[in-house]
Amino acid sequence: MASSVSSSPDSAGIVRVPFPELVERLTRALRHLGFEHENASLCARLFAETTRDGVYSHGVRRFPRFAAMVRSGLVHPNAVPERTARCGALERWDGQSGPGNANAWRSMERAIALARASGIGCVALANTNHWMRGGACGWQAAEAGMIGMCWTNTMPNLPPWGGTTPAVGNNPLVLAVPRAHGPIVLDIAMSQFSYGALESYRDRGEQLPVIGGFDAAGELTRDPAAIESSQRPLPIGFWKGSGLAFILDVIGAALSGGQATCEIPPDPLQETGQSQVFIAIGGSFGRNPDDIADAAIQFLQSSQPVSEAAHIRYPGQQTLRIREENLARGVPVDRSIWEDLG
Amino acid sequence: MASSVSSSPDSAGIVRVPFPELVERLTRALRHLGFEHENASLCARLFAETTRDGVYSHGVRRFPRFAAMVRSGLVHPNAVPERTARCGALERWDGQSGPGNANAWRSMERAIALARASGIGCVALANTNHWMRGGACGWQAAEAGMIGMCWTNTMPNLPPWGGTTPAVGNNPLVLAVPRAHGPIVLDIAMSQFSYGALESYRDRGEQLPVIGGFDAAGELTRDPAAIESSQRPLPIGFWKGSGLAFILDVIGAALSGGQATCEIPPDPLQETGQSQVFIAIGGSFGRNPDDIADAAIQFLQSSQPVSEAAHIRYPGQQTLRIREENLARGVPVDRSIWEDLG
Repeated sequence: MASSVSSSPDSAGIVRVPFPELVERLTRALRHLGFEHENASLCARLFAETTRDGVYSHGVRRFPRFAAMVRSGLVHPNAVPERTARCGALERWDGQSGPGNANAWRSMERAIALARASGIGCVALANTNHWMRGGACGWQAAEAGMIGMCWTNTMPNLPPWGGTTPAVGNNPLVLAVPRAHGPIVLDIAMSQFSYGALESYRDRGEQLPVIGGFDAAGELTRDPAAIESSQRPLPIGFWKGSGLAFILDVIGAALSGGQATCEIPPDPLQETGQSQVFIAIGGSFGRNPDDIADAAIQFLQSSQPVSEAAHIRYPGQQTLRIREENLARGVPVDRSIWEDLG
Repeated sequence: MASSVSSSPDSAGIVRVPFPELVERLTRALRHLGFEHENASLCARLFAETTRDGVYSHGVRRFPRFAAMVRSGLVHPNAVPERTARCGALERWDGQSGPGNANAWRSMERAIALARASGIGCVALANTNHWMRGGACGWQAAEAGMIGMCWTNTMPNLPPWGGTTPAVGNNPLVLAVPRAHGPIVLDIAMSQFSYGALESYRDRGEQLPVIGGFDAAGELTRDPAAIESSQRPLPIGFWKGSGLAFILDVIGAALSGGQATCEIPPDPLQETGQSQVFIAIGGSFGRNPDDIADAAIQFLQSSQPVSEAAHIRYPGQQTLRIREENLARGVPVDRSIWEDLG
């Protein structure tokens, strides 16, 4: 259902690496960065799975920036979240500046455990780092048989509706539903296109498929370079996504007691101290949710397509196919990054 | 932050009615429709408050259609939700085809009670009717000191991304945060403009402020009449809102055991049996959430405005001002509806 965010996996600069070898090499690189066994294994697996599942922008390709933040002391390699407050099925944890993907995974694990006991569970996490692929926590909940919801705030990187300078984050939101034939997982940021996506389109010399922001004259445009230059990407749904980004941030900061977007340093290399919320909901009471999900997918795809070539996809539909292909052919990794992993 | 959905409250066909008189007249009309005391009072108050708060499209203006659905037997005047399953802080209720606004209010009350006991509470409601103004439940949670989240499915009224015929609902989503100086409440449907909004713009001879759907030739357009005619309104954020609408529906139907969008009759006068989810989250553990919300609002409004006349608003910002004005001057009601109330 989404347009492609990453450049094609197969090009001159790409090597195909067997998944276990990728995990092993990332683990070793993390050990060299000072990670002890447990965080190294978890963090490496999450990076490798992200690339395996086709989310190339937030997998191994992000590892060099992540390593730089470990070296600069912003990401603490061996920190794990600590619980700071508890009220029934709602808990507040402090991420201790630990690695963001591992912190997020542990938080969703805890929300799932709370939901097993109470039907629903919520973990609000302060003081963490970029979770890389939020959808990983959606898959995690769905694979545990739970409905999952989670979101994060970010540094200010998006002008609100009516404004021209960044004052909200693009605050990704993840929703997931378990399903026998593959879960439904939605993973969307509140900007129509990420800066990474804008860069990809520009590199390929392409216009965006739909308007993605404003140019220097304040006109809506499909030109990725014009948006990179104006720094005015568009929130999804204009005022609606702007409002949604704003309130997700306030809820995350209020529940976790951590930083709001306005307190996070507005620099990708200094962006730390995010606030996140993880909710798991269990409880299949009667009717098989699979029947509902399958019927809804069938109905979705019964809509008359816009053209013969058009696909109407449910969120997450392509992931299992991409995963299978990458497991069979090797996971595509940038040659330069692979060589640097040593 | 939203564009105006309703026509200006003051025009030739509008009367200004004192709020208590409006509640009393609606209560009496409901009694004539067969409502007993409790449901009549609650349902009347919710209709009157919706118009009082400026959500003209879903308040008294919707009363004639609501009355028609009571008369046709689709809305059962004296039904109240019954609990059908329970798992800790997660409960499933059956709305018994009762009045949608009263069912939704009772469900959020129950979610709030669960959250008081467990930090977080969730009620999944099957077999209900149109909740009219979903934002009412957001205000309700926030005024109880809780973070509120709720959503509903609808009949299929929106083509999914890549399709030309309706296969998802516009499935409104509500998020709310308590705050001393007035709560933050977001209430958004997954279509960029409702059919009611398209009609308002067309009546005023105006183009939409941004693209709102496709014309007959499949081109994106700001012409409201062209979208009404093609029946192809645009989901917010193109594929993103299409995916969000889809998964909210599946979660609501799976949790409640009720109908998914594909099972709801695609006719506004037959639209019944919606599934809804109500979540309340309590637990202010330390830092005062008001400080976070106030800081976030201040930062939001520090963005450089697009023009001198531009306002950067937080969700719900205008409601208290409109409420105050309508309480002082009388609530604006269409004269024809007021006279029909008898």
